[in-house]
Amino acid sequence: MAKGLPTRQEDYSAWYNELVKKADLAENSAVKGCMVIKPYGYAIWEKMQAQLDKMFKETGHSNAYFPLFVPKSFLEKEEQHAEGFAKECAVVTHYRLKANPDKKGALMVDESAKLEEELIVRPTSETVIWSAYKGWVNSYRDLPLLINQWANVVRWEMRTRIFLRTTEFLWQEGHTAHATKAEAVAETEQMLEVYADFAEQFMAVPVIKGIKTAAERFAGADETYCIEALMQDGKALQAGTSHFLGQNFAKSFDVTFTSKENKVEYVWGTSWGVSTRLMGALIMCHSDDEGLVLPPKLAPIQVVIVPIFKTSEQLLEIKNKIEPIKKQLLKKGISVKFDDRDTQSPGYKFAEWELKGVPVRVAIGARDIQNNTIEIVRRDTKEKKVYSMEIVENIVSDIENLLNEIQENIYQIALKRRENLITNVDTYEEFKKVLEEKTGFIYAHYDGTTETEERIKEETKATVRCIPLDNPQENGVCMVTGKPSTQRVMFAKAY
Amino acid sequence: MAKGLPTRQEDYSAWYNELVKKADLAENSAVKGCMVIKPYGYAIWEKMQAQLDKMFKETGHSNAYFPLFVPKSFLEKEEQHAEGFAKECAVVTHYRLKANPDKKGALMVDESAKLEEELIVRPTSETVIWSAYKGWVNSYRDLPLLINQWANVVRWEMRTRIFLRTTEFLWQEGHTAHATKAEAVAETEQMLEVYADFAEQFMAVPVIKGIKTAAERFAGADETYCIEALMQDGKALQAGTSHFLGQNFAKSFDVTFTSKENKVEYVWGTSWGVSTRLMGALIMCHSDDEGLVLPPKLAPIQVVIVPIFKTSEQLLEIKNKIEPIKKQLLKKGISVKFDDRDTQSPGYKFAEWELKGVPVRVAIGARDIQNNTIEIVRRDTKEKKVYSMEIVENIVSDIENLLNEIQENIYQIALKRRENLITNVDTYEEFKKVLEEKTGFIYAHYDGTTETEERIKEETKATVRCIPLDNPQENGVCMVTGKPSTQRVMFAKAY
Repeated sequence: MAKGLPTRQEDYSAWYNELVKKADLAENSAVKGCMVIKPYGYAIWEKMQAQLDKMFKETGHSNAYFPLFVPKSFLEKEEQHAEGFAKECAVVTHYRLKANPDKKGALMVDESAKLEEELIVRPTSETVIWSAYKGWVNSYRDLPLLINQWANVVRWEMRTRIFLRTTEFLWQEGHTAHATKAEAVAETEQMLEVYADFAEQFMAVPVIKGIKTAAERFAGADETYCIEALMQDGKALQAGTSHFLGQNFAKSFDVTFTSKENKVEYVWGTSWGVSTRLMGALIMCHSDDEGLVLPPKLAPIQVVIVPIFKTSEQLLEIKNKIEPIKKQLLKKGISVKFDDRDTQSPGYKFAEWELKGVPVRVAIGARDIQNNTIEIVRRDTKEKKVYSMEIVENIVSDIENLLNEIQENIYQIALKRRENLITNVDTYEEFKKVLEEKTGFIYAHYDGTTETEERIKEETKATVRCIPLDNPQENGVCMVTGKPSTQRVMFAKAY
Repeated sequence: MAKGLPTRQEDYSAWYNELVKKADLAENSAVKGCMVIKPYGYAIWEKMQAQLDKMFKETGHSNAYFPLFVPKSFLEKEEQHAEGFAKECAVVTHYRLKANPDKKGALMVDESAKLEEELIVRPTSETVIWSAYKGWVNSYRDLPLLINQWANVVRWEMRTRIFLRTTEFLWQEGHTAHATKAEAVAETEQMLEVYADFAEQFMAVPVIKGIKTAAERFAGADETYCIEALMQDGKALQAGTSHFLGQNFAKSFDVTFTSKENKVEYVWGTSWGVSTRLMGALIMCHSDDEGLVLPPKLAPIQVVIVPIFKTSEQLLEIKNKIEPIKKQLLKKGISVKFDDRDTQSPGYKFAEWELKGVPVRVAIGARDIQNNTIEIVRRDTKEKKVYSMEIVENIVSDIENLLNEIQENIYQIALKRRENLITNVDTYEEFKKVLEEKTGFIYAHYDGTTETEERIKEETKATVRCIPLDNPQENGVCMVTGKPSTQRVMFAKAY
């Protein structure tokens, strides 16, 4: 193991694919476009879930669960939404298989079990949820509804990439209903902040908060807010979106309420989501040619202890020596693995845990026992340092500090990389040149039309990632059409 | 609210349906047979999940995630399994909708987007998971695989009932692979114990552990273990199953390993699951004509505090008085709600929290402030008692003890009820009489054939729930055929 990982320089894309596989995060399944998330990968996702769930609850949201299936007629109710989601979806048409009379052991669709109305496997749940909300809302007293769902969704993708774009993926989708537009907008913005905080403080991935152009907006939303991250290869990755839905779904599903002033009004809505795509962002933002680099706050194993021993007596001695340290680390909520396998060499183990991105590696051998020391290697910088084991409390707080340092350091590295990859350009020529040679986020003027946006996309594969929040206003001219513009927007090639 | 709940005596079935609805646990969705689990119901399920997940991890299992879709050909590989699951399933045949040219705004299946092979929405994941395990297992060193998945599954049910039998439901499914038969059997039994512990210690639902007859066995298993609970109406409810799969799926999916002795052998498997059906068991086992009765260990709100006030000054005084108690309860991990709504009367609130099954209700008014007392009502017995607030620590530990008492009391009530509803019968006449007049678990001799079992089921609607573990052996004759029998088995009508 650990061997055979291509370098990022050689082939960034192959590096990513191999890393996902070799670090035991996930694999492609026999079902086209669907992935299997393996235990080590899932453990990272569980840590993400737990933290996000906490943040959702702290902002007043509750979890609920809505059906997997969307009746075809529901999709038809919101025109934009149907346009956006009906094109790539899994359609359930029958509810029974039967034995194939022509082939022993084979099954076939039972044509007599055809559904009257086809069911779509949810690509997102606005329609199903707003159909339920109709029964839940009568008066302003029933509002706001602040609900989140953890679920699987399916979008029939032609080209898939593990974690980044898969036919089935896991996500959370928040769906809220409010009495006023101002409240719904505030909710949309609040959840964008929650996502940005999570990305930066837990994933250690810096993000740009902004608003999508009409062309990139969620189908059925009045406004889509997003957070955009930058990967090591200079490509952007949309890491989360928060949509202000206006009264669109309330109107499609006839969700009204009686206001304090005794008037019947349509409800205002939002929806917001992040998905297992975040796993892709996490991997691509920090990892190196030796393997994963995980932020300590999301690492399933934060500290691995590798004993270096020849005999079982030596192992026992090391175990006894390390036990108080391990115990105190666990007590502080730090996850520790003591890797005492006797089937693998220390060198193999070092490479394996490096590949799997464990932030702190502790090694201890016979000489360390003599000297009362241990060797600690941090995964991010690979720096090696020998520590005294004299005082257990000290070594424990050293490790704790080191974890915090790593968390901060990998964030700073990603931030600096991004700062270096932000470029202002004034001409289309310069735009193309930077896009090809330097890559990254490019701030440029354009005339704000979907037409020009599409032309740029066709010609360069770059899209408007967002109009950053609090974007400085400045007069300029569109780099393509020369028409006037009042602000630069952020372009990039994206995953 | 709270009004209009039928009594159990009047109509047990209507009582259950109305209770689920009025207590805001769940509702039927617009999608036939699928339910919406509402926030209050989902909060109970989250508590169940958290505890079960902890127990799975403590017994060495990790979570992972496998695809929603099962290719038709996978189902065909295990004959028994196909027989059991292909008959009621959601079949995905197409991957695109398109605009209906004959009807503006309408969508239709795009016939050009027909799948080469149909996909089944998983009714259970043995086939998909064993297909993955083939790639994960080579040597005895790769075993055991101890994996669990939290997921949604779909079984096309004709008659559905919220929580008890729904087309889509949520569950966990453990799937393990072992080098030896003994290990796999031990795992099957261990997980049955985990389920029994969870049911009894957390749900406060006593269960009988046993083995299913061949007729009731999981399709594809060599042996199915189960836990069976008894509801208040004397009907049984299967609350969890643990299957010893033998080498069946290993053979169907060609999963072999090289043993320590360097021989290539098939892997041994188990699978085990519990679902949102447990919610039904929880509701039906403990609740009464006033509403839900929740075991404190699974109640989303364990203590509700209802202030009785006329003015905002009075409310403030109560708030200040109760704050230290609330804080200390929270510190002990007890969930507390302070219900200071000014839109509802205390009486309304009492009825609402009674309906929602909150174990402990605290009321405090102006007179209590004067006397330095509070009134505490326990949900299970409805007993009311006045406590001194002199010493905060005392009142907090009184409440803590009360929660433990309630947990134990509702278990004991359910246990006694069950003891009274266990009957040994010797003749078929007696069997039918007890089944109709007394109901409950009936222990009787039968000849052990599927034929007789089916006859009993047809004639009485009772099934063999299980052969209890450690069942006493005694000679007898089948109550139907008069053939010899070596043990009584447990019959009941079941949900």
